[in-house]
Amino acid sequence: MKPITLEQIAEILREHDNYLILMHKSPDGDAIGSAYALCMALRKMGKKADTLCGDEIPEMYSYFTDLAPNEGFEPEFIISVDLATTNLLSGKAAEYSDRIDLCIDHHGSNNGFAAVGYVDGRVSSCAEIIKYLFDVMGTDIDSGIADAVFTGICTDTGCFKYSSVSPATHRAAAELMEHGAQSAFICHLMFDSKSRSKILLEKMVLESLEFHCGGQLAIINITRKMMEESGARESDTDGIASIPRRIQGVKIGITMREKPGGEFRFSVRTSDDIDASVICGNFGGGGHRAAAGCSIKKELSQAREDMLCVCRQLLEGEK
Amino acid sequence: MKPITLEQIAEILREHDNYLILMHKSPDGDAIGSAYALCMALRKMGKKADTLCGDEIPEMYSYFTDLAPNEGFEPEFIISVDLATTNLLSGKAAEYSDRIDLCIDHHGSNNGFAAVGYVDGRVSSCAEIIKYLFDVMGTDIDSGIADAVFTGICTDTGCFKYSSVSPATHRAAAELMEHGAQSAFICHLMFDSKSRSKILLEKMVLESLEFHCGGQLAIINITRKMMEESGARESDTDGIASIPRRIQGVKIGITMREKPGGEFRFSVRTSDDIDASVICGNFGGGGHRAAAGCSIKKELSQAREDMLCVCRQLLEGEK
Repeated sequence: MKPITLEQIAEILREHDNYLILMHKSPDGDAIGSAYALCMALRKMGKKADTLCGDEIPEMYSYFTDLAPNEGFEPEFIISVDLATTNLLSGKAAEYSDRIDLCIDHHGSNNGFAAVGYVDGRVSSCAEIIKYLFDVMGTDIDSGIADAVFTGICTDTGCFKYSSVSPATHRAAAELMEHGAQSAFICHLMFDSKSRSKILLEKMVLESLEFHCGGQLAIINITRKMMEESGARESDTDGIASIPRRIQGVKIGITMREKPGGEFRFSVRTSDDIDASVICGNFGGGGHRAAAGCSIKKELSQAREDMLCVCRQLLEGEK
Repeated sequence: MKPITLEQIAEILREHDNYLILMHKSPDGDAIGSAYALCMALRKMGKKADTLCGDEIPEMYSYFTDLAPNEGFEPEFIISVDLATTNLLSGKAAEYSDRIDLCIDHHGSNNGFAAVGYVDGRVSSCAEIIKYLFDVMGTDIDSGIADAVFTGICTDTGCFKYSSVSPATHRAAAELMEHGAQSAFICHLMFDSKSRSKILLEKMVLESLEFHCGGQLAIINITRKMMEESGARESDTDGIASIPRRIQGVKIGITMREKPGGEFRFSVRTSDDIDASVICGNFGGGGHRAAAGCSIKKELSQAREDMLCVCRQLLEGEK
């Protein structure tokens, strides 16, 4: 993949037409915000543009996604946003895997699948890059575009909490608010509002909370029974994996999720000095230093014991 | 209280010396951040300055409060920050109630107790005003001062979530980060970290969650038994009162807290179209439109029924 500048992207977008913008499966606020913002900006330039995702776009984003209904045209130039690898494309979007013309992303691990690309792993979110692209393009950012970009930035930074937030991130947020982004509405919707099913699920999950290794390890379960009894949807499990790690004194936070077919999916969150990807690597999984995952296909108590055993060794090795 | 400008405050601070800066009881991040930032800035000008609060400053703020240990001197000029009324002073700080020279505050309800004052109810936090004061004063903001001001802004805005956040708030955050504010560390400490006691308390509280009025009203209890069994401190109850209101469909969220002496303290949080202060006014309490409180001295089930009865009428009156 040939690296190009934002100025070159602006040039390319002026030259071509009939853009299709791809999002990864289980799309999050950054993927959806980036894709819709770019789509709306291209249409403002008089271009035909559309977005495509293999999975459904959650209803909660309708305050900006409703602004850009699908249009019929034959896609000519394919763009991916917030996509680190084409393995994360699903359904109809996956059909474009081998013909992506331009990639815009903020994952340092991006494996370079497109013809040309702009990847900056230091930027908080793909949407923040899209904002800088709009600055270069001289895009007339209206309130719909501003809402989309703001949503991408605030969801991927945990509402300006993570270490990926830079002074420039806050300045981008300030400008987006001046263009009409509904900051308080978006932040409330994304971070301060829970479905009744989600709160019931959280209650059940907290009842399963156990501490091990002198309080350095906390583990919670999400069973299929809990999902059924609470009426929770898949999206209601968002954020639950971070509950155990947030408890003071906990170095390893584990969420054990019962999947169909007797499999257990482990989400592991760790503090700086412990590598979650090493823990999960023991079971054929992987991820980042602070957040990783793996699956173990065993009976519940055995799967759990296997995981605890690896963690115990790691915590003891630390002393 | 004579209203003055930030320029006039800068002038006054240059002229006087031996400053004592007062904080309200149960001091929060905004009070503590504002007071310590101002104290550190005054000392940088070669002045003697100190902070005073009737209650203890929580340990969690030590990353900037440790920078400004107490100094012995006779206070000559008394300043209050983030203080809406002198009723909120306690202990030694209350002794200065009648002789406050300068008030800096962001509460629209400030009742003007000082000789001169700068009050702007549109600004997100007192710390944000302090930042603008430093701009006028030309203060050399070091990392300690930046941490203190950033803490005030982020805690009083729910980490940049509330409607009080303006583009200028984000720009202030950006500049403070450039002066060394540890944004990610502070946000994690204030919003993503819970004591083991607090998570146990939350678990117990969620077990008490009940819905009424077709899901429009949610109520939780904090009993003295829960406080004892979880080992929770008073500060661990922070934020719990907002849990029921965050549930989708809930218009009135109530937290019922058992106090010594057979009294129950109700915290009421409502959505826009219902006035929490009206609900609490029925029981001799008060507060704001979206957040109010009152006490009922009755047997548990009766206190609860009295509150539910008032809320039911209000919700039915809405139809």
